[in-house]
Amino acid sequence: MDRFRALRRLALDLGVDGVALVPGPNFERLMGARFHSHERPLLIVIAAEGPPAAIVPDLEKGSFDPLGFEGEVFTWRDQDGYSGAFAALARAIPLRRLAVEGQVMRVFVHHALAAAYPGIDILDAEREISALRRVKTPEEIAILEESIRISEAALAETIAEVRPGMTERAVEGLLTQALFRNGAEAHAFGPIVAAGDNSARPHAHARVDYAIQPGDTLLFDFGAHLGGLNADITRTFFVGHAPEAAAEVYETVLAANLEGFRVTRPGATAHDVDDACTRVLEASPFARMIRTKTGHGLGRAVHEAPQIMRGNDEKLESGMVFTIEPGLYDLNAFGIRIEDDVLVTEDGCRSLTTFPKELTVIGQC
Amino acid sequence: MDRFRALRRLALDLGVDGVALVPGPNFERLMGARFHSHERPLLIVIAAEGPPAAIVPDLEKGSFDPLGFEGEVFTWRDQDGYSGAFAALARAIPLRRLAVEGQVMRVFVHHALAAAYPGIDILDAEREISALRRVKTPEEIAILEESIRISEAALAETIAEVRPGMTERAVEGLLTQALFRNGAEAHAFGPIVAAGDNSARPHAHARVDYAIQPGDTLLFDFGAHLGGLNADITRTFFVGHAPEAAAEVYETVLAANLEGFRVTRPGATAHDVDDACTRVLEASPFARMIRTKTGHGLGRAVHEAPQIMRGNDEKLESGMVFTIEPGLYDLNAFGIRIEDDVLVTEDGCRSLTTFPKELTVIGQC
Repeated sequence: MDRFRALRRLALDLGVDGVALVPGPNFERLMGARFHSHERPLLIVIAAEGPPAAIVPDLEKGSFDPLGFEGEVFTWRDQDGYSGAFAALARAIPLRRLAVEGQVMRVFVHHALAAAYPGIDILDAEREISALRRVKTPEEIAILEESIRISEAALAETIAEVRPGMTERAVEGLLTQALFRNGAEAHAFGPIVAAGDNSARPHAHARVDYAIQPGDTLLFDFGAHLGGLNADITRTFFVGHAPEAAAEVYETVLAANLEGFRVTRPGATAHDVDDACTRVLEASPFARMIRTKTGHGLGRAVHEAPQIMRGNDEKLESGMVFTIEPGLYDLNAFGIRIEDDVLVTEDGCRSLTTFPKELTVIGQC
Repeated sequence: MDRFRALRRLALDLGVDGVALVPGPNFERLMGARFHSHERPLLIVIAAEGPPAAIVPDLEKGSFDPLGFEGEVFTWRDQDGYSGAFAALARAIPLRRLAVEGQVMRVFVHHALAAAYPGIDILDAEREISALRRVKTPEEIAILEESIRISEAALAETIAEVRPGMTERAVEGLLTQALFRNGAEAHAFGPIVAAGDNSARPHAHARVDYAIQPGDTLLFDFGAHLGGLNADITRTFFVGHAPEAAAEVYETVLAANLEGFRVTRPGATAHDVDDACTRVLEASPFARMIRTKTGHGLGRAVHEAPQIMRGNDEKLESGMVFTIEPGLYDLNAFGIRIEDDVLVTEDGCRSLTTFPKELTVIGQC
C-alpha cells in the first residue's frame, strides 16, 4: 500500500527527480487531511527514487504527525523562518528538476525552492499531477452524490421562497442557510445568484441594489462542499413569467445540455462532448451568445481535469466526473446556463444531478 | 484620484519596472471587485511609468469592463489559451524586473510571465505590496466592526446550545448556521471548533467521532466575512466545569492577552506586542506550552501585515488592525487561546472584539 506509487511513476514519466505537493486537492487525497497554509509553507516532496520528505510549520506538527508520513519531516518555527528547513530538505533530497502543481503552489514557495536548490528547473505539471485523480473511487462518488443531494434540497427550499422584489443578495442568503441546514460543510465556491442582466455575467456577484423583476431570469450556480468533494450545479429559472425570446434561448441551452449526455461514454473524448453541445448552440439563432466551453472535471477541486473543450483529446474513462454546462449569454439582457454533474459509467454516463431542468417559472404570487 | 499612485511609488522604491496584481486582497481593494480566477489567469500590471495593462479571460470581460480600468486590456478565450495575451502584454509593457504578490500569485501565472518575458526577474514583494493596506480606512473599519458583531452574535447563540455529548462537528454546524443567520456573507476561513486534546492543535478540524466531555476545553476560532473584510476571533470555554490546572493556564493566557493591549499604541513595534505577551507566558509555569507568535494583521486577508512577532520592528500606526491571540497548548491534553481584533488608535488601541473573555463555563445542565 504505497500511496505515492503513482506519483513516483509520474516523476519518471516526466523525467523529473521528484514531485512536490502543497496543501490542496492532490495533497488532501493522498494525505487524508486539509491544512490552512496561509503564509506558512508546508509541502511534501516525493522523490522519484528514495524516501519522501516534508516541510511542516511547527504549529502544524500536531496535525501532521498522525498522518503517518513515510519520510523525514523538517519543521520550522515562526521566529526562525523557513529557509533553514528548505536547506535541510535540499541536503536530504537532491533535485535538479522538480514537478509542482502550478495552479496550487504559490510564488513564495517556488522562490523558497529556487533559493534552496540553485539552478533547479521547476516544471508546472499541474495537468499531469491532477490527472491522477480524474477517475474517482466509489467512496468519492458516494460523497459527491451526497453533496449534490444537499445542494438540490437547498435549491428546492430556496426557490419556494423567491418572490419578485427580493434582491439577489437576499436570495443568496436563503440559499446559504438552506445549504448549511441540509448538511453542507462549506460552500464549494462563492455561490452565484444573479437575475436579469447580471445572469449574463458568468461569474456574477449578488447585488443588493436591484429588486428581482417579473420576467427576469434567475440563475443559481453553487454547490455544497462535503468530505473534501464539491458539488457544482447551475439552474436558471424565470421569475413570474417567461418572456418568449428568452424561453426560446432556454430551450436551445437545454437541447445542448441533453446533446452532451448523448455523446458521453468511455472512449469518447472531452472534445467530443464540447463539440456536440457547442454545435447545437452554433446551429441556433443565438450563436453570437456563446461565451464558454461546455464544462470541467469536478471533484476535490471545483475545476479540474478533464476540461470539456474542443481540442482536448483526452479520452473519457469510467469513473470520471465532469460538468456539462452549456450557456447562452445576451450581454446587458440575460444569461441562461444549465449545469449537471455527470459520471462516466461503463457503458455511457449517469447524471449525478437530478434536479428538474425543464423551463420552470418560480415566484408566482 | 489615481488609485495606482502608491503602487507606482513602490515600484520605484523597489527598483522594478512594474507591479503585477492578481485577484486577491490587494486587487480587491484597488479594483473594488472580486474574481474567481481558478485556472484562468487574470492580472493587472502597473508600470512604474506609463499606463497600466490587464490580462482578462473573455468570460470575465462583462465583470471587468465596468471597473473603469485605466489601461489596455488583453483578453483571451478558453479555446485559444492565454499565451497570446501574455505576448501582447509583453509588447505593450516592457519589463525586466517585476514585483508580484508571492503569497497570492500561483506558479502557472509566474511561468506564463517568465515565458512572455525571457530573462525577467520576478521579485516576491508580497510584504511591500500588502503593506500598502496595513492602515485601514474608516469605511473598512466600519465593515470590520460589523463582521465582528455578526461573529460575536453567532458565538453567543452557539454556546447557549452546547451540551456535553455533542460532537465538535455538531457544534460547528450550529456556529455556521448562526453566522449566516446573523448576516455573514461567508466564513472568513474554515472555522475551528475543537474540544479537549483537539484544542491543542492550532489548526484543528472538528471531529465527528468524539463526544464533548464535562471538563473539556472547547475552543472556537472563526469569523464572518463581510464586504471584503474578515473577522477572526478565538474564545476558549470550559464545558460543565473547569479543572483547576487548566483554569490556571487560562488565567495565564488571559493575562498575556491583556498585556498585549497594554503596550499597543502608535510608535510601539510589532515586536513589542509579541514580546510583552510572550514574556507573561515565559514567566509562568507553562512556558513549555508556548507554540506560536502573538498575532497577525487582519483585514481583506485573514493573515496579513503586520505580523505580531519578535524581531518585527515595524512601527504600529493609527488605523492598523491586528490580532492579539496568545495561547498555551498542552499537547494530548488541551489548548487555550484568547484572540481579539485590535485597532491602533491615535493614543493607544481599542478592541474591536467585545465578547467577554473571563473564564466561562458553558453547557451546564
